[in-house]
Amino acid sequence: MKIVENPSEIYSLVASSKCNGKRVGLVPTMGALHAGHLSLVEEAKRHCDIAIATIFVNPTQFGPNEDFSKYPRTLDSDLEQLERAKCDWVFVPSTMQMFPEGLSTYLEPPTVSKNWEGQIRPGHFRGVTTVVLKLFHMIPADVAFFGRKDYQQVAVLRAMVRDLNVPIELIACDTVREQDGLAMSSRNRYLSPTDRGRAVGLWNALQHVQSLVREGCHDVERLESEMRDMLLAVPVDRIDYAAIVDGVTMEPLSHVLPDAVAIIAVCIGTTRLIDNLSLDV
Amino acid sequence: MKIVENPSEIYSLVASSKCNGKRVGLVPTMGALHAGHLSLVEEAKRHCDIAIATIFVNPTQFGPNEDFSKYPRTLDSDLEQLERAKCDWVFVPSTMQMFPEGLSTYLEPPTVSKNWEGQIRPGHFRGVTTVVLKLFHMIPADVAFFGRKDYQQVAVLRAMVRDLNVPIELIACDTVREQDGLAMSSRNRYLSPTDRGRAVGLWNALQHVQSLVREGCHDVERLESEMRDMLLAVPVDRIDYAAIVDGVTMEPLSHVLPDAVAIIAVCIGTTRLIDNLSLDV
Repeated sequence: MKIVENPSEIYSLVASSKCNGKRVGLVPTMGALHAGHLSLVEEAKRHCDIAIATIFVNPTQFGPNEDFSKYPRTLDSDLEQLERAKCDWVFVPSTMQMFPEGLSTYLEPPTVSKNWEGQIRPGHFRGVTTVVLKLFHMIPADVAFFGRKDYQQVAVLRAMVRDLNVPIELIACDTVREQDGLAMSSRNRYLSPTDRGRAVGLWNALQHVQSLVREGCHDVERLESEMRDMLLAVPVDRIDYAAIVDGVTMEPLSHVLPDAVAIIAVCIGTTRLIDNLSLDV
Repeated sequence: MKIVENPSEIYSLVASSKCNGKRVGLVPTMGALHAGHLSLVEEAKRHCDIAIATIFVNPTQFGPNEDFSKYPRTLDSDLEQLERAKCDWVFVPSTMQMFPEGLSTYLEPPTVSKNWEGQIRPGHFRGVTTVVLKLFHMIPADVAFFGRKDYQQVAVLRAMVRDLNVPIELIACDTVREQDGLAMSSRNRYLSPTDRGRAVGLWNALQHVQSLVREGCHDVERLESEMRDMLLAVPVDRIDYAAIVDGVTMEPLSHVLPDAVAIIAVCIGTTRLIDNLSLDV
């Protein structure tokens, strides 16, 4: 596995591979890798001739009171895991390479970024879209792979790619879960054993709502209230949102329609967790 | 000369040409072509194997009270001129292709866009950077050519390309002028014969300031005041600015330094004209 730090080196490698007829897949990550990330690399290996992961903890997507400084950095373990997953190249830029002094061009993210994460984390999607577009320019891959756990992020990036005609295909991959259903997340390692026990409450609430929909309940007000009640019973320490939305526009729904998705963001202790489940049943 | 309307067709043409070792040059225009644009195409032919011009009047860079609807559209003449200049391909997208319903991702342009044109035309550089980045994605050329007449635009696009790691080189080309010194501009055709006579006042003021600098005057306050006096004597009908700035940051200077540029924007009748001259003498 080749580790590259220099943007122009990775660009040349990718450009010449593509001219040689190779299909190149990209998996952008912030490191602290878990089985969810590795499933993206496996998917990239399946679809492409060359799989490239990037590891970069993007300061611009964290708010001032968020966990940027304490976000887990586990580079050695990340590289080992990528090696084992047969990732071909890893791009590990420095913060100075990605955000040098004086950088002042950002993206104004699409409308689909306004609600939910976008509202609770102002500036988050501005940071996400900007860094992802920078990576797409540095690594002109054919396909990029993102996890559905960050559901709104995928919707925002799809809109960005479409609106700006970025020549890349996005593939969203299923969320990988622990045995009990908790969605894999780099932030799960913040959870104390008790908090870890409570954390499965997101998955239970999502499954409950899905089963109600399967039983024929399409009334969003009732479904959201049931989800909320289950979360309060866990108990979780804060509910940022527990909503049923259109899975393309991220707009609230009053009635479950095809493409509907249940989305949840809560705090358990000081750890903020998000999860979602398609209701398109 | 091949005329292409379809974004995916022009993308494939360019991508395969580059893989075949051809160097591709791009000249984005809003049509209403004059000798200035043609000099960009000639420069593209000189530097590259394939020269591509684009013709698209970008609605998003015009303010609500600006001349978008009456901006000159002269497609037949444009295509004839490009043919004569041996332009290889012309990309002529429709407004619906470039700005379909629901598009909502834009660029937040760099700091260098804040003053001057950016202040007087709010949203102008947001529109310029967004459309140019879209064109760079549709047409992944090696080099793009822009005229120095739009001096701040070149500075803004350079910052955008650098900040977002867009894999393209920008080349700024000298302003082409009429016999009397008036900078070529698509908007010159709005000028009545009397206004056309007054329009040379911009060039006279710029040359005067350059000669004062050559004689050793480096005091920006005095230089600006002389520029302004000359413009008022023309008379022009409004001075938006007549300033001496750092040619990289576009920040005001108090003293002429290397990279200093004199920039002017005025109205003559209802026609707004801009021009500039390097003072790096």
